[in-house]
Amino acid sequence: MHSSRRIKTIAVLGGTGREGRGLALRWAHAGYHVIIGGRDAARAQTTAATLREKLSATARIDAALNLDAAEQADVVVLAVPFAAQLDTALQVRPALVGKVLIDVTVPLVPPKVEIAQLPGGSAVERLQAALGPEVAVVSAFQNVSAHHLADLDHTIECDVLICADDDRAAQVAVELTEAAGLQGWRCGPLRNSLVTEGLTSLLIAINRRYKVPGAGIRITGVTGAH
Amino acid sequence: MHSSRRIKTIAVLGGTGREGRGLALRWAHAGYHVIIGGRDAARAQTTAATLREKLSATARIDAALNLDAAEQADVVVLAVPFAAQLDTALQVRPALVGKVLIDVTVPLVPPKVEIAQLPGGSAVERLQAALGPEVAVVSAFQNVSAHHLADLDHTIECDVLICADDDRAAQVAVELTEAAGLQGWRCGPLRNSLVTEGLTSLLIAINRRYKVPGAGIRITGVTGAH
Repeated sequence: MHSSRRIKTIAVLGGTGREGRGLALRWAHAGYHVIIGGRDAARAQTTAATLREKLSATARIDAALNLDAAEQADVVVLAVPFAAQLDTALQVRPALVGKVLIDVTVPLVPPKVEIAQLPGGSAVERLQAALGPEVAVVSAFQNVSAHHLADLDHTIECDVLICADDDRAAQVAVELTEAAGLQGWRCGPLRNSLVTEGLTSLLIAINRRYKVPGAGIRITGVTGAH
Repeated sequence: MHSSRRIKTIAVLGGTGREGRGLALRWAHAGYHVIIGGRDAARAQTTAATLREKLSATARIDAALNLDAAEQADVVVLAVPFAAQLDTALQVRPALVGKVLIDVTVPLVPPKVEIAQLPGGSAVERLQAALGPEVAVVSAFQNVSAHHLADLDHTIECDVLICADDDRAAQVAVELTEAAGLQGWRCGPLRNSLVTEGLTSLLIAINRRYKVPGAGIRITGVTGAH
């Protein structure tokens, strides 16, 4: 394996959910081979077929059970509900060793999803600790509205805040952010993900109070930084 | 006291610091009577005199010890360093009863200010608990760069995230946000301030990595919401 090897195949575990589906669509559109991972193979197949209809004939989007999807991929994306985050990751752990895992999980606790949780730290730190140092975990995409991802003609006015302890993992997240048509910003270590995870609750609070479908954030004051 | 009474006088405790000074400048420019509060009367006087030089002759900006400043004001703003937050507020508590206190404090712990703290909650919740229900505390302005506030000719590209349990306190923060030439968004209860407080560390991380002086944030996807 060579460090400059390009990413070819991305597994999106929880790719049948709204956020995972939206990211899968954008990456397949950008030319990556995407595998929708799910607990239910038939449901994953249905999602893949639905996404294929929105894409050109050359786009490659397949489906598999989560473990199979992770085994086939260069990069694995975890986009399952918070309650399933740790279990799903631990079930596929053998397929994650030596790879980058992008965690998209938001620790929303229904029904009060507009109130930030009081974590003992970020959810992604807990995940990294559970998986151990052989898996390089990076946190990203928590604040991007699934509503906007689903529409390929829509320019998304939301930046991606990337937190990582591992530099290679951060760089992979930056590549996939740009491939999805978004601007990514490296925001420090995994610890800082407690802010990006919690920010989703504030955006939901804004959606509700101001009656908008998908508030997002942009980093400002950075002209010329990229 | 009448609920529609306009705010006339604002005390900025810690008004000799960079963030407090910037806010005081903007509010005096907008026509409010601003009192720079400090622990040292002479230093507060010097700050007030320096700010007066940047303002028109009709602007009203005075100086006082923190307690005197709070007593004279309709609204009190706490802009001291994190280490002095609780002590300063408790010292002036008698002058805060029945008023709105806008807390600008960011729980930065030097030297690692680019790493978000692990709070048992937001710093402002701890403050509200210490002051009791007779003081209505609202959290705001944590993410606005002092660098940008200081320049009256500069249009600030940073929104203000406002967290409050008390509706009147939130409305006061919205009024003073707009008076400072900024756009404010109500982001839910004080609990959610753990995100806005921590976000400052992420913006500092961005400033350092991308070598920019004052990264900020804008809320997007909200066209027509105001």
